[in-house]
Amino acid sequence: MRALVFENGQARYTTSHPEPAVKDNEVLIAVTCAGICSTDLEILKGYMGYSGVLGHEFVGVVVKGPRDLKDKRVVGEINCVCGKCDMCLSGLNNHCRERTTLGIKGHEGVFAEYVSLPRRNVHVLSDAVSNDQAVFVEPLAAALQIVKQVSIEPRHKVIVIGDGRLGLLTVQALAAHGGKGNVVLLGKHQEKLLFCEKRGIQGTHLDDMIFRPEWDIVVDCSGSEAGFADACRLVRPRGKIVLKSTWVATAPVDLSPLVINEITVIGSRCGPFPEAINALAADRVVVNGLITSRFPLAEGIEALEQAKKANQIKVVLDINQG
Amino acid sequence: MRALVFENGQARYTTSHPEPAVKDNEVLIAVTCAGICSTDLEILKGYMGYSGVLGHEFVGVVVKGPRDLKDKRVVGEINCVCGKCDMCLSGLNNHCRERTTLGIKGHEGVFAEYVSLPRRNVHVLSDAVSNDQAVFVEPLAAALQIVKQVSIEPRHKVIVIGDGRLGLLTVQALAAHGGKGNVVLLGKHQEKLLFCEKRGIQGTHLDDMIFRPEWDIVVDCSGSEAGFADACRLVRPRGKIVLKSTWVATAPVDLSPLVINEITVIGSRCGPFPEAINALAADRVVVNGLITSRFPLAEGIEALEQAKKANQIKVVLDINQG
Repeated sequence: MRALVFENGQARYTTSHPEPAVKDNEVLIAVTCAGICSTDLEILKGYMGYSGVLGHEFVGVVVKGPRDLKDKRVVGEINCVCGKCDMCLSGLNNHCRERTTLGIKGHEGVFAEYVSLPRRNVHVLSDAVSNDQAVFVEPLAAALQIVKQVSIEPRHKVIVIGDGRLGLLTVQALAAHGGKGNVVLLGKHQEKLLFCEKRGIQGTHLDDMIFRPEWDIVVDCSGSEAGFADACRLVRPRGKIVLKSTWVATAPVDLSPLVINEITVIGSRCGPFPEAINALAADRVVVNGLITSRFPLAEGIEALEQAKKANQIKVVLDINQG
Repeated sequence: MRALVFENGQARYTTSHPEPAVKDNEVLIAVTCAGICSTDLEILKGYMGYSGVLGHEFVGVVVKGPRDLKDKRVVGEINCVCGKCDMCLSGLNNHCRERTTLGIKGHEGVFAEYVSLPRRNVHVLSDAVSNDQAVFVEPLAAALQIVKQVSIEPRHKVIVIGDGRLGLLTVQALAAHGGKGNVVLLGKHQEKLLFCEKRGIQGTHLDDMIFRPEWDIVVDCSGSEAGFADACRLVRPRGKIVLKSTWVATAPVDLSPLVINEITVIGSRCGPFPEAINALAADRVVVNGLITSRFPLAEGIEALEQAKKANQIKVVLDINQG
C-alpha cells in the first residue's frame, strides 16, 4: 500500500508498504485524511526512536470489522492497551505498561492507505462532524484532558502559551469551560492571534506581554524551553502550570521557583474522544480555518516540510478520498 | 552584638554587629540556639544574593515585647509579611509579595545574640518541647507542609529521596500520617538509614534500590539534580512528585516524562508551626540523635564547614545559654 514511512532516520514515501495485519479484536480502517502533529515532527528528529508508518491524527472508514462498525466513518484513539496490567486495571488505560502508540511507539501509523486498530479504540462520527473537523478530534481530546485534570472556574485567570496547532485548540477548549473573558492566548504570530480574537478570546503578542506572576493557571503549549520559562514567570504563587508539550532541553532549567512559589506542575497527554467529538459537533470549538495546507499522500515529504513552517497551523494529508 | 554575618561573598564572625532595630509590632528575642540548614549553605554559594546575619532556625527568649510574651521561650516563623497584598488578603501570607525572610532575604537572621521578629511570627513553646527539639520546629513545619498539599492515605506507596536533615524529618512526618508501613526513605548513608529504621520506617540504600515507576508519591529532599531524576524514574504514571529542596541546575533536565506519564509536581516550602510543635511535644516525630555537632557562636565558621560534611545531620550553634 501507499505510505509515508520513517526509517533509518529518514522519511520517505513508498507505494509498496505491507498492509497492516488485522489481529483479533482489531478493525481495518481506510484512512480518508490525516493531520500532521508536532509529535510527528519530533519523531523526525529521533523522538521515541520510532520507525514505521508515521502519523496518528486521522479520520477513516472501517473496511474490515464487526457489522456495527462496517463502512462507518471513524476516528481512533492512539494508545493500544493490554487491559491486564496494574494501570489498565486501575482505570488508567492510557498509561498501560505494555501499550503501543499509533505512529509513535510499536504500532504503525496513519499516513498510509490502511491502519489497523483495536475495536475499543474506534469512535464512530456523527454526520454533524465533517472529515476536516474530525482530523482535529485527537488533538482536541488532548486539549480537553486539561479540564479533566484541573478544575477551571470563571474566577480563574488562565493563559495559554503558544499559538500553534495545540494552543489554538486548547484556548478554545478552556474558554468553553472557564468563560471567554478569563482566558488569554499568548503567541507570536499575528494571524494566529487574530484567529483567536475572531472567536472572542483575547490574543496577546509576546512583545506586548507584561510578565507578572499573577495567573492562576498557565498552560504551556509552546513546545519550547522558553515557553516553560515564561510559564514560571507568569504563574502566581500556589498557581498551576499545565505542561502539554514536550521538548528537548538544551540548557539547565531552574526549578527553584516551583519550590519557592509552591507551584503545581501538571503533565497532561491524551484525552477523551467522545467529548472532543461533541465539542466539534456543537461548534463549541471551531476548527474552520485551521487547515492551512493540504497535500496528497504522495507529496507527504513536502507536507512534512510545510508543517515545520511558522506560518502554518494544521497541514492535512489526503489519502483515500470520497 | 556577636553575630555570624555573610557579606561580600564571605561568612565571618563579629562581636560588633549592630543590634536589630525593633519596629512596631515586633518583639526582640535573645537567641538561645540555632540550627544550620541547607539553605544557609546555599546562601554561602550566592543563593538569593543575601547579605547580613545568617540563619533562620532557632529557639530563643523574648526580651522586649508585649507582656504576654515577655520572658517566654519561643520559636519564630521566617516570613515577615505586609498583610495588605493580594497574596496576604487571600490567605497566602507565606507568599506575601512584599515579604522579607529571616536570614534569607531582607531580614537579619538568627546566628546572632538578638533577632527581631513581628509579633505574629512568634510561637510560645510548651514545657513539653526542649530547646534541642525546638530547633527543629521550622524544618519540621516545612516537612508537615507536604500533608497540607497532598493527601497521603494508608493505601499510598510513599518514598522520600534523601537521608539528610530534611529527609529524616519528612519521612517521620509522612509516616505519622500515612502509616509507617507504606513510607520508605531512600538514601546513601548507612547510619542515617539506621536512624530511620530504629523508628520503624524502612530505609533503603541507593545501591540496593530497584528503580520501577510504581510509587504513588515521591518526595524529593535530596537537594540535587540526581534526586529529581530519580524521582522521575520512581513515580508511577499519574503519580505525584513533591519538590522540597532547591538546587542549582548544571545540566538540562528532561521534563518530557512528566507529560508522557501525566505526573503532578508540587513545589512545597514553609509549613505550619503549631502542628510541628505539637508533633514534637507528642513525640510523633523524634529528633533525639539528629544533632550531630554543636559549637558556640564564636566558632560559627567551623560549624558551617562541619554542616557541609556528609556524615553530619543537624549542626547547632549555642548562642545565649541558660
